Amino acid sequence: MNVEDIQSRLAVFARERTWDQFHTPKNLSMALAAEAAELLEIFQWLSDDQSKAIVGNEEEMVLGREEIADVFIYLARLADKLGVDIESAVLDKIEQNAKKYPVELARDNATKYNKRC
Amino acid sequence: MNVEDIQSRLAVFARERTWDQFHTPKNLSMALAAEAAELLEIFQWLSDDQSKAIVGNEEEMVLGREEIADVFIYLARLADKLGVDIESAVLDKIEQNAKKYPVELARDNATKYNKRC
Amino acid sequence: MNVEDIQSRLAVFARERTWDQFHTPKNLSMALAAEAAELLEIFQWLSDDQSKAIVGNEEEMVLGREEIADVFIYLARLADKLGVDIESAVLDKIEQNAKKYPVELARDNATKYNKRC
Amino acid sequence: MNVEDIQSRLAVFARERTWDQFHTPKNLSMALAAEAAELLEIFQWLSDDQSKAIVGNEEEMVLGREEIADVFIYLARLADKLGVDIESAVLDKIEQNAKKYPVELARDNATKYNKRC
Repeated sequence: MNVEDIQSRLAVFARERTWDQFHTPKNLSMALAAEAAELLEIFQWLSDDQSKAIVGNEEEMVLGREEIADVFIYLARLADKLGVDIESAVLDKIEQNAKKYPVELARDNATKYNKRC
Repeated sequence: MNVEDIQSRLAVFARERTWDQFHTPKNLSMALAAEAAELLEIFQWLSDDQSKAIVGNEEEMVLGREEIADVFIYLARLADKLGVDIESAVLDKIEQNAKKYPVELARDNATKYNKRC
Repeated sequence: MNVEDIQSRLAVFARERTWDQFHTPKNLSMALAAEAAELLEIFQWLSDDQSKAIVGNEEEMVLGREEIADVFIYLARLADKLGVDIESAVLDKIEQNAKKYPVELARDNATKYNKRC
Repeated sequence: MNVEDIQSRLAVFARERTWDQFHTPKNLSMALAAEAAELLEIFQWLSDDQSKAIVGNEEEMVLGREEIADVFIYLARLADKLGVDIESAVLDKIEQNAKKYPVELARDNATKYNKRC
């Protein structure tokens, strides 16, 4: 995925509409949380099995795909405004998580997993 | 960014810890929303100007970078479980948004923007 | 519950700490969403049955009770700043919901329920 | 506010529609977070001053009042399912907060406030 290209399209999009005044890190974090909640809404009354089965429901998947896009759009925009490289941040975090959750401990320790993931 | 590679690392990470049982679309949407809220917390008491200024605050930026990574990690994992290609979903959404918010209307119409973004 | 009394204690608490500058409706809505997400975190990796069983887990219940309090505190504070009477708003909403979800339709129609609750 | 009466109305409402199957603590925490995010959406593109000024905007206030009601409804329902008395939880939390944020320290220490509210 070409994140820089997406970020630059989003920056042009905002600039053309003079929306940079609205796109402060604070406001973008709110928009991101609001979009994440729309994903949540798709699943809120479904059982775990039903939540897996939505893969076969075209209407729900159209909606889910759009909400995933919205979350990424605001995340990319926020990362751009803060100067954060998403990929390197993610790779560093995966490494940290590997230390935090060693296989032997994490595998047989759902309680610990529940406490902190 | 190599999203497929990240998704495959995350899949291995989960499999090694037998965490797939926890990683239903429903639970991942909850974890995503919870991480988005941690980003929100960074900004909740800051003014817009202070929220821009955190770029110069190393401690806050370390935290912000980690939370951005966490949001992306759960988003990538959820997209993987649902079979959604994030990049194509994002490009489609940007196109839709361009139709929904034509420059001439959006530029001088903050009210409309407030109503529906 | 004496909501007015709670709101007035919270107002005094904020005034004594000169926190009214932070307690704009916008910021309070962020704090409320962040606290709601902390409740979410308690349940994110639990099955539905496990989520019911936390009633018997003292440690989790101490945490849950605190998060419920935090959500109410910010809701009460926001309602106070906006001049909204929570009880009358709730009673009106219950009435609206009764019209929106007539028993005969809602009972045998989980799909509709899933779409819009 | 008669919380017990509201909770008992909500319990009847759910029972009549056979919705108790959906109202697990887990699902209610999701619905609560989703409603809190709808409050967030009202404020996401507003400045702090605009967020205060919505008190004079009837249309926004109708919406805000409804979202406040929705948040309380799910909070009351969750507290009921978990056997938590909201009022006593809130009074205990206010007492804890008074110890955690002594006036002398909190007043001249916005940084600390930013770190942990």
